[in-house]
Amino acid sequence: MPSEFRLKRRVQFYETDAGGIVHFSVYFRYMEEAEHALWRAAGLSIHDRDSGFGWPRVHASCDYHKPLRFEDLVEIHLLVAEKRSKAITYEVRFHRVNGAAPEEVARGRLTIVCVSHAVDGTMKATAIPEEIASKIEVAPKELLAGEVKREA
Amino acid sequence: MPSEFRLKRRVQFYETDAGGIVHFSVYFRYMEEAEHALWRAAGLSIHDRDSGFGWPRVHASCDYHKPLRFEDLVEIHLLVAEKRSKAITYEVRFHRVNGAAPEEVARGRLTIVCVSHAVDGTMKATAIPEEIASKIEVAPKELLAGEVKREA
Amino acid sequence: MPSEFRLKRRVQFYETDAGGIVHFSVYFRYMEEAEHALWRAAGLSIHDRDSGFGWPRVHASCDYHKPLRFEDLVEIHLLVAEKRSKAITYEVRFHRVNGAAPEEVARGRLTIVCVSHAVDGTMKATAIPEEIASKIEVAPKELLAGEVKREA
Amino acid sequence: MPSEFRLKRRVQFYETDAGGIVHFSVYFRYMEEAEHALWRAAGLSIHDRDSGFGWPRVHASCDYHKPLRFEDLVEIHLLVAEKRSKAITYEVRFHRVNGAAPEEVARGRLTIVCVSHAVDGTMKATAIPEEIASKIEVAPKELLAGEVKREA
Repeated sequence: MPSEFRLKRRVQFYETDAGGIVHFSVYFRYMEEAEHALWRAAGLSIHDRDSGFGWPRVHASCDYHKPLRFEDLVEIHLLVAEKRSKAITYEVRFHRVNGAAPEEVARGRLTIVCVSHAVDGTMKATAIPEEIASKIEVAPKELLAGEVKREA
Repeated sequence: MPSEFRLKRRVQFYETDAGGIVHFSVYFRYMEEAEHALWRAAGLSIHDRDSGFGWPRVHASCDYHKPLRFEDLVEIHLLVAEKRSKAITYEVRFHRVNGAAPEEVARGRLTIVCVSHAVDGTMKATAIPEEIASKIEVAPKELLAGEVKREA
Repeated sequence: MPSEFRLKRRVQFYETDAGGIVHFSVYFRYMEEAEHALWRAAGLSIHDRDSGFGWPRVHASCDYHKPLRFEDLVEIHLLVAEKRSKAITYEVRFHRVNGAAPEEVARGRLTIVCVSHAVDGTMKATAIPEEIASKIEVAPKELLAGEVKREA
Repeated sequence: MPSEFRLKRRVQFYETDAGGIVHFSVYFRYMEEAEHALWRAAGLSIHDRDSGFGWPRVHASCDYHKPLRFEDLVEIHLLVAEKRSKAITYEVRFHRVNGAAPEEVARGRLTIVCVSHAVDGTMKATAIPEEIASKIEVAPKELLAGEVKREA
């Protein structure tokens, strides 16, 4: 019953931009990588074509403190912050870990909802199936930072 | 002295994912496209290698209401919500405009800061140069929605 | 019955990399943009969920002559080079068009095949439906450059 | 003195498209990941801001045999196929390795050139520095497949 996941990965060149740093949109892809790794650790796949369920995002945010650069090692620490009947919210912390000491470079938040697909392709929010809800746990409160604050 | 920009563009296939919809990280790229178009409309370029200034993002968020799909026409409406000495905040509204009536599909927010680059590559927040600040105006209050609210 | 398409678009910041130029993988996305615009000009959509057909790529190549940079205007000129029973090949030329004179910066080639989807998700090459084949024409031979040559 | 590198990684959701498979442009990013991992294995970084050298791509191609899907495990096997005074060519083979037996899904080729940067930002092809050339070796001929053949 995982409630958090730590994913370490190296910044790729195609993730940088002409400013010489990781493009800000890429952090949301990093969040997703860690999220899907958490699901796999729980024995689940978030995109199961036969399940009839989907997990679109309804909210995503990120506060950037310091830039990441090519070949930096980044740890993406994803925690389950909230589990409701139809939605799950994650808190995500990004640390650069190739320096002398880990350094927090960004912090984000992601909320997904469980939907079922109608025959016409539309999606309708629905209760999270028990076999999924039972495998993903909310992280202990003392580990969670709460709402992301605006930086500027 | 532009204070808003409306960019219309078609959803590309490489922006969709296996869920059949536009990947949530792509909306942040759309925000950037509209932002840079606003700057060009103001006679500016946000990435001027000779200027010594850079504009990293310190906050980005998006609330997703409805999915976008391949070949949808989307209007990205970017408004300057706040202008401070070192930072600019935009409000961004996404509408699908290929249907009978425009439909709001998402809403976001983006804050950038002006930085100068030190010789060692580090960045330091600095006052927005007057020749830039004078060309970008805050949108009329009645056009702004204010803080993005959490959806779920 | 279009046999070519010219798409003009501006280089976006998220398409650049830390080398200060457009990432080489992005040219393949530009090819796709022009291809899908050609299909729309022919009254077609290349991704029609109800058709039962798909168009995976079996070959893609690009030779890069000069770099593209942020805010460059690029013209993507796509020509139908070959139409076979199950496959279509395009030739693609990239010109920077914001300078004094258009300048060829890259040249590519793309081959797609028509597939039908079996119930288990596998794909099988199949004849291009007549209502599609009849709407896409091979470009006049004198416009085509032929095989892409190796640069280095 | 490495002459090849095998990188195993999982297909991410943001790498798929609405066709349900990995977007064809992503294979070029996979090639780059394996290339940069080879350089790191050789004690090098391909993007060293202080070196004055850059490594733009002059040719990239890929032949796609079978699709990759979300969460597939893919092995990217990069081999140094050719080393010339100013250019290096790689051969790249992609295998899905999560099934009963490894299955070749694609094969590609990539040629990079060594350039020096002039003060005005232009790039000029230049001889590969000896401290780099001496650390990257051509793979044994019997391991190389030679030119990529057209599929369709």
